[in-house]
Amino acid sequence: MAAAAAGDVHEEMLNRRVILKRYVTGFPSEDDMEVVTGTARLAVPAGSTAVVLKNLYVSCDPYMRGRMTKHEDPTYVPDFVPGEVLTAFGVSKVVASGHPGFAVGDLVWGMTGWEEYTLVPNPALFFKINHPEIPLSYYTGVLGMPGMTAYVGLFHVAKPKKGEYVFVSAASGAVGQIVGQLAKLTGCYVVGSAGSDEKVNLLKAKFGFDEAFNYKKEADLNAALKRYFPEGIDIYFENVGGAMLDAVLLNMRLRGRIPVCGLISQYNLEQPEGPRNLACVITKRLRMEGFIVTDHFGEYHKFEEEMAGYLKEGKITYIEDVAVGLEKAPAALIGLYTGRNVGKQLVKVANE
Amino acid sequence: MAAAAAGDVHEEMLNRRVILKRYVTGFPSEDDMEVVTGTARLAVPAGSTAVVLKNLYVSCDPYMRGRMTKHEDPTYVPDFVPGEVLTAFGVSKVVASGHPGFAVGDLVWGMTGWEEYTLVPNPALFFKINHPEIPLSYYTGVLGMPGMTAYVGLFHVAKPKKGEYVFVSAASGAVGQIVGQLAKLTGCYVVGSAGSDEKVNLLKAKFGFDEAFNYKKEADLNAALKRYFPEGIDIYFENVGGAMLDAVLLNMRLRGRIPVCGLISQYNLEQPEGPRNLACVITKRLRMEGFIVTDHFGEYHKFEEEMAGYLKEGKITYIEDVAVGLEKAPAALIGLYTGRNVGKQLVKVANE
Ligand SMILES: NC(=O)c1ccc[n+]([C@@H]2O[C@H](COP(=O)([O-])OP(=O)(O)OC[C@H]3O[C@@H](n4cnc5c(N)ncnc54)[C@H](OP(=O)(O)O)[C@@H]3O)[C@@H](O)[C@H]2O)c1
Ligand SMILES: NC(=O)c1ccc[n+]([C@@H]2O[C@H](COP(=O)([O-])OP(=O)(O)OC[C@H]3O[C@@H](n4cnc5c(N)ncnc54)[C@H](OP(=O)(O)O)[C@@H]3O)[C@@H](O)[C@H]2O)c1
Repeated sequence: MAAAAAGDVHEEMLNRRVILKRYVTGFPSEDDMEVVTGTARLAVPAGSTAVVLKNLYVSCDPYMRGRMTKHEDPTYVPDFVPGEVLTAFGVSKVVASGHPGFAVGDLVWGMTGWEEYTLVPNPALFFKINHPEIPLSYYTGVLGMPGMTAYVGLFHVAKPKKGEYVFVSAASGAVGQIVGQLAKLTGCYVVGSAGSDEKVNLLKAKFGFDEAFNYKKEADLNAALKRYFPEGIDIYFENVGGAMLDAVLLNMRLRGRIPVCGLISQYNLEQPEGPRNLACVITKRLRMEGFIVTDHFGEYHKFEEEMAGYLKEGKITYIEDVAVGLEKAPAALIGLYTGRNVGKQLVKVANE
Repeated sequence: MAAAAAGDVHEEMLNRRVILKRYVTGFPSEDDMEVVTGTARLAVPAGSTAVVLKNLYVSCDPYMRGRMTKHEDPTYVPDFVPGEVLTAFGVSKVVASGHPGFAVGDLVWGMTGWEEYTLVPNPALFFKINHPEIPLSYYTGVLGMPGMTAYVGLFHVAKPKKGEYVFVSAASGAVGQIVGQLAKLTGCYVVGSAGSDEKVNLLKAKFGFDEAFNYKKEADLNAALKRYFPEGIDIYFENVGGAMLDAVLLNMRLRGRIPVCGLISQYNLEQPEGPRNLACVITKRLRMEGFIVTDHFGEYHKFEEEMAGYLKEGKITYIEDVAVGLEKAPAALIGLYTGRNVGKQLVKVANE
């Protein structure tokens, strides 16, 4: 195994990493995380099928907040462990490999660590990057987990038809910008909400949404939705929950669909706010359906080809918010919950 | 038209009827309705295709509360009008007809009035009763709207599979008792909740539920559900909403389904309680789907045959709570919201 042989160099490197300092309740702060320096061996244990990754880009994703809570009962993803490195999706280069499927130099994306080098005992869940001609960082976003989330939520759960009215919240974010553009490609009428005028402009000027509004400037969300959807909403791609969901329920059309992707407005609340207008689910015959993107990773490469095609043809465009350097990662993550990010938030860890 | 000729008798009868006195906010009281006496002509206007019905049984259904509220925007069913008779499903005999499809003496069920005689200008939406050998009153329940609600919600929305875990709230009611029995016929494990020990006994002894509990005696609904569903719930047939829904969300299994049939615990609240555990819809990939039975009336006669078969074979049994006399109707309706009814609540208006 030539690749494994590289491990024989026994090279030891400094390895900056971001660890969780303590479990979090309520709103997280930078101080809940800490950047520390350890070491990494750029070699895999003899005889193992592990790989060592050099991380190029790591992702900041809203669901990571949930992993900072200590859960009594296991949930869909394990809690982070205080003192240990945060794990997240990232784009990496293989620098040592004992695995027959991965060679040194391979570009991959998958669940890695918020650190410079990561030893991955079982790399089988990593995807090889088939389109390195596209910006590699896109594999944390439009070509990675968030892009696929948009795709699955829209096409597998909501199942849009041409001419339908689609509303997307957190519309300028990693998932939202793709949802809106895919819905436009399907022939839908698409409106997005976002938390700043800059984001609203992006939605209309850059992503081709039919309309967009700054929800923070709307005293009455119900009235705002009535203005943008006089005929009502067929599909609400739910990213935020809370007051927006309640207003949306009042504006859904008969047999509307709500793919429940995320509820970011609730992630830092001790006591979540329930939607009071749930009766609309009955009277309007609505379907609300949750999904987790990783369930659909089996069709990732099909998605990758389709999305890479759209990107190359210029049918889909993508905006990223890149924090440079691991030490910026904690603030970048926390910024998601205040809407500081404009587009997909990620962290550049090392040069390609 | 021989049937219409019967109208020539110009017979005028006293007609007791229950009218809405005023729009209702909060919990309804008997005093919001009034029993008055008018007159009815047992004849149809010359040349019309109307029918006159003699009402035998009228139904008390939870959704009627919604029609007592004054809505600014139209909802799925029109508001009642103060001073006018309450309309409801009922079982009736045709006593005059100008309609070629209905003859004097026909037994029908459909949307009639809480009164002795009802002039129906367009009887096309009434169903002829094909199984008069079964108690006619059943056409307000197991063979009528509530039975079909159970059928549609279970088979069209929830789509149970053999061996799945099914939970039904308001389980001894008009809809719930049928849901549970149909789920048992499908080979599911079925638990019901109800609001008295008498009802709980009925669920187990009469309707063949595997387990049942009195939710009013459970301080911790989450703990109760964990006791009855250590493996979790695949299907929750939602009749009540509120605290029960929240506890259920915590106990759903992956890819569980919640047909949202009714939210009776919320119907009299000025400010409904939203479910705080909505995040479970995402993490457990749940589907919550509302439906309205009338959308499915096109397949009523197929349902009627199937259900009549079950009743005759003794595979399904039914319990009714019969109030005798129209003057009992207001109290019977209000009793639904306190759980006074044991089984399907209906009112006997006249002898067959
Ligand atoms: N189900 C799945 O498998 C899956 C996978 C990926 C993501 N998700 C979910 O999808 C949603 C979007 O994720 P993303 O990666 O695309 O994040 P993102 O939109 O790029 O970033 C989060 C955005 O959420 C908005 N936000 C933050 N706090 C808010 C609040 N209190 N009320 C309303 N909006 C708020 C902010 O935008 P504004 O400036 O517009 O407020 C912020 O920029 C999240 O809920 C996430 O958890 C689900
Ligand atoms: N979607 C549709 O097309 C459709 C059609 C028909 C009915 N429905 C709905 O289905 C549900 C059941 O209707 P049904 O005709 O079968 O009524 P029912 O169960 O025969 O009667 C109502 C029962 O609800 C329970 N209840 C009342 N207030 C409650 C509260 N605050 N919390 C919990 N339970 C309460 C009581 O039983 P306990 O003693 O057990 O508490 C009461 O006996 C209702 O929500 C109704 O609106 C929907």
